[in-house]
Amino acid sequence: MNASGRTIVIVGGVAGGASAAARARRIDEHARIILFEKDGHVSFANCGLPYYIGGEIADREKLLVAPSELLERRFRLDVRTRQEVVSIDRQAKTVTVRDHASGGDYAQSYDRLILAPGASPLVPPLEGADAPGVFTLRNLEDTDRIKAAVDASGARIAAVIGAGYIGLEMVEQLSRLGFRVALAELQPQILPLFDPEMVRPIEDDLRSRGVDLHLGDGIEAVLTGPDGRARGVLLKSGAEVDAEVVILGLGVRPNLGLARDAGLEVGDGPGGGIATNEFMQTSDPDIYAVGDAAEYPYGPTGSPMRVALAGPANRAGRIAGEHAASGRSRPMAEVFGTAIVRCFDRVAAMTGLTMTLARRLDRPARSVVVVSNNHAGYYPGAEPITLKLVYEPGTGKVLGAQALGGEGVDKRIDVIATSLHFGGTVADLAGLDLAYAPPFGAAKDPVHMAAFAACNQLDGLVDFVEPDADLSHVPQFVDVRTPKEVADEPFPGVDRPINIPLDELRDRINELDPSAETVVSCRTGVRSHVAQRLLRQLGFEKVKAVSGGEMVRSRAWRSGDGG
Amino acid sequence: MNASGRTIVIVGGVAGGASAAARARRIDEHARIILFEKDGHVSFANCGLPYYIGGEIADREKLLVAPSELLERRFRLDVRTRQEVVSIDRQAKTVTVRDHASGGDYAQSYDRLILAPGASPLVPPLEGADAPGVFTLRNLEDTDRIKAAVDASGARIAAVIGAGYIGLEMVEQLSRLGFRVALAELQPQILPLFDPEMVRPIEDDLRSRGVDLHLGDGIEAVLTGPDGRARGVLLKSGAEVDAEVVILGLGVRPNLGLARDAGLEVGDGPGGGIATNEFMQTSDPDIYAVGDAAEYPYGPTGSPMRVALAGPANRAGRIAGEHAASGRSRPMAEVFGTAIVRCFDRVAAMTGLTMTLARRLDRPARSVVVVSNNHAGYYPGAEPITLKLVYEPGTGKVLGAQALGGEGVDKRIDVIATSLHFGGTVADLAGLDLAYAPPFGAAKDPVHMAAFAACNQLDGLVDFVEPDADLSHVPQFVDVRTPKEVADEPFPGVDRPINIPLDELRDRINELDPSAETVVSCRTGVRSHVAQRLLRQLGFEKVKAVSGGEMVRSRAWRSGDGG
Repeated sequence: MNASGRTIVIVGGVAGGASAAARARRIDEHARIILFEKDGHVSFANCGLPYYIGGEIADREKLLVAPSELLERRFRLDVRTRQEVVSIDRQAKTVTVRDHASGGDYAQSYDRLILAPGASPLVPPLEGADAPGVFTLRNLEDTDRIKAAVDASGARIAAVIGAGYIGLEMVEQLSRLGFRVALAELQPQILPLFDPEMVRPIEDDLRSRGVDLHLGDGIEAVLTGPDGRARGVLLKSGAEVDAEVVILGLGVRPNLGLARDAGLEVGDGPGGGIATNEFMQTSDPDIYAVGDAAEYPYGPTGSPMRVALAGPANRAGRIAGEHAASGRSRPMAEVFGTAIVRCFDRVAAMTGLTMTLARRLDRPARSVVVVSNNHAGYYPGAEPITLKLVYEPGTGKVLGAQALGGEGVDKRIDVIATSLHFGGTVADLAGLDLAYAPPFGAAKDPVHMAAFAACNQLDGLVDFVEPDADLSHVPQFVDVRTPKEVADEPFPGVDRPINIPLDELRDRINELDPSAETVVSCRTGVRSHVAQRLLRQLGFEKVKAVSGGEMVRSRAWRSGDGG
Repeated sequence: MNASGRTIVIVGGVAGGASAAARARRIDEHARIILFEKDGHVSFANCGLPYYIGGEIADREKLLVAPSELLERRFRLDVRTRQEVVSIDRQAKTVTVRDHASGGDYAQSYDRLILAPGASPLVPPLEGADAPGVFTLRNLEDTDRIKAAVDASGARIAAVIGAGYIGLEMVEQLSRLGFRVALAELQPQILPLFDPEMVRPIEDDLRSRGVDLHLGDGIEAVLTGPDGRARGVLLKSGAEVDAEVVILGLGVRPNLGLARDAGLEVGDGPGGGIATNEFMQTSDPDIYAVGDAAEYPYGPTGSPMRVALAGPANRAGRIAGEHAASGRSRPMAEVFGTAIVRCFDRVAAMTGLTMTLARRLDRPARSVVVVSNNHAGYYPGAEPITLKLVYEPGTGKVLGAQALGGEGVDKRIDVIATSLHFGGTVADLAGLDLAYAPPFGAAKDPVHMAAFAACNQLDGLVDFVEPDADLSHVPQFVDVRTPKEVADEPFPGVDRPINIPLDELRDRINELDPSAETVVSCRTGVRSHVAQRLLRQLGFEKVKAVSGGEMVRSRAWRSGDGG
């Protein structure tokens, strides 16, 4: 230990750990800061790995965001790669370090310890899971191995198991490389964190691009050839998929052993991680935890939860580094699981609660779905964004949002994530003063349109049925699209729909029964909004509209219908 | 007046008026709703006009967002174009209407009156201002005239007077059509609502594209040829500019006459408009005002102010329409003057206060400037965004922001505009949970980077000098860039800079005087941040860094220096 300052030991040198180390140095020039990393590289671009495999990022050097040499030179860090901290003695304030180069163990004392041990890919105990040709993707070594296998593959067929973020990114990148790709996901949808109807268009797009999609089907075994190498995958359904390269993207398990063995408090359940306070201190105030193994304050529930994403890891690392160095910092803000993924030309993003999660948590929630252009429709290149807003009945407090589209999906989710930070309501969203010029948005932005719809519902002006509702017994279902639209895309899951185009509704009102329970719909929900208001004022007592119209219903119904 | 409901009369049929009319109908099917528009078209895409002139929007029909026929059919509006409301009798609750087709006047009664009279382009009393070939751009008729003149132009030379939003958009579109364009602006910068250093790169870009830029120079007269047509412009400096097409983009004057004559309260000063309450009611509760002539609650000052932008007009129209129809609505939210403009490949956007405006209002304010990539630097296509955050000293309350860059400028300004809505602080911005994947952002977003810098300043960890500060007498100026960087781009406006690259600073610390007042800088502010922290901890007592580094300094200094 150096004489002039405290020793800060950091376990794990990627997002959270590297951020903590650099911040600690900027706060305390005199501290001794030791960064242990069990693998070969620190501060690499873990979110960029799939793009390097696919060749979008051409230069491997670019993945090394801050190489050891830079960290050592600029921040005077003592970076020790391939050295793994295997235990903590909290009494003695030492850690035991295993040097994977020499094989020997040694003790290292600390004044403050920051744990950023991350998570490990889940590998179920499958037959063949350890066969050559089967990979998980977590670090640069994995990346190099996959890239070598991909380069060497003759048949250019691959299977990706698990349709989460990394799974989807790998499907895209392998397809880009000319691979025929099969994608299997145990849930009946891709991106299981999203509400199902929000991701249906990506599933359709994957199929149209030749991806062999197996939803609601998990992996049973890796099939191996006479040489012991992977030759395919056997799915639980019995289907067999040929593959020279098998990527397991089944999620991650947080590395909690070090913290548990040291007696640090660890949360229960699947969302549980190393318990932390607002300064990222664990139950031992000299020990901090950040990154994929740590719990954060989770906004939608107010309870601590692991959120294995890069953004919170970087911010939490910065806070832990400052607090470890100086005993003070600003508190960690609530996280909302804000996340985004691109899959070919489509982008899906979310923040906060989905309807699926709200139901699972028994949290009262309502939702509206709008389909609205990313920028003024009259300016070239406008693309529809499907935006789903989840909010609290009564108060209108925003609980979460999901968006699907192309350009501008990220912006809408970031605006709503910002609103979540402040505990905003749908009325707040309706009043936001957002930047508008024709290439960038609309005077009424999709965020406004969704918020207007939710406010209308809260104010009793309209009511909605969710896109996946059972409408088979609705006495009076009125489709206000044009007859051509109805013929082209029939509204799914209703009996005897009545088609009256919106602009004829006033004149043909006598064809409808004002006392009957009525549901109206159109293509995206704009016209049915006008129709609902009209019917209500013409004495129709029980009217609702289908949120998101036929377009969203078709996605939701298919999923309700079992695909 | 029809027997079954109230009569709502709306004056002005574009953004605010059309929104009010449609909303009023959705709220009240039984009302009689009359929409008066003195020009020929209602609900056209006024923000799209420049793009149609330039051909980016090819189809004129696209500019007609909701033609009269649709409004009449779908919303049962009584649309009366070329009919101008010329006076209001508040006692009798009638308006006098001039029918520009017949030339006659008639009275129309109202129960509720919504004024959306808009604004008129400023045309100073110049010699030649009414010559053929001189145009303002406000409505479809103007657009058709300009397009005809542009199509007929042989020499293809144009002058645009005024470098605000419309002026810049017209420069871009005329250049696109192959015109040689001169642009004159009375202020010493384009986009005078921005802080000068934020728009310098657009000025450089305009010059590099051959635009003949005259800053700090206004129009003296339009020069006309023997045929009486415009042949150019004489500027105040005496410079003459040849032009067959002259566009006057000198701003607008709100149409307040109708309200003033009726004795409605109108605010004083240049920002004054028709006074309104939160439901957009004027001093006469049966009369509402929205759009470019109305005052809105302006967030940064808490005082009412005109904000002549499409977004607030649309939202306010919706509120006025609902309240006029039903006597209730949600209140109008504060506006922040959030605006965005694209000029060729560059995008500038702002929300809330600039430093210039803060100084003019005598509002204590500090700022930080960061230069940070729009998405992860290792993912292809990353472009720097210059982001300036203006905040309140002490509290850190965010007062405003400006951004310059390409892709992603809109997103950052919208996120900060959302934060302004909630009265957020820079610490709130530092904690936002934004969506991150390599194509869309960075784990530490530009918004975070700017907020971190401001928090560091508030926490006393660092201090900044503004990019335009006088640094000529700083005793010790340390440039921590590499010698090559310093040689390529010398730091402007300092005497005897000392160049010590950051990574050599610890070893060469003895070359510096710890007791001397010290300013450090680098290229963008990242390295100088590390340097400042290091020096402070090594006993340097008075250290500051240049916000935004040499890159932003070069823009600001040039402007402080007079261009």
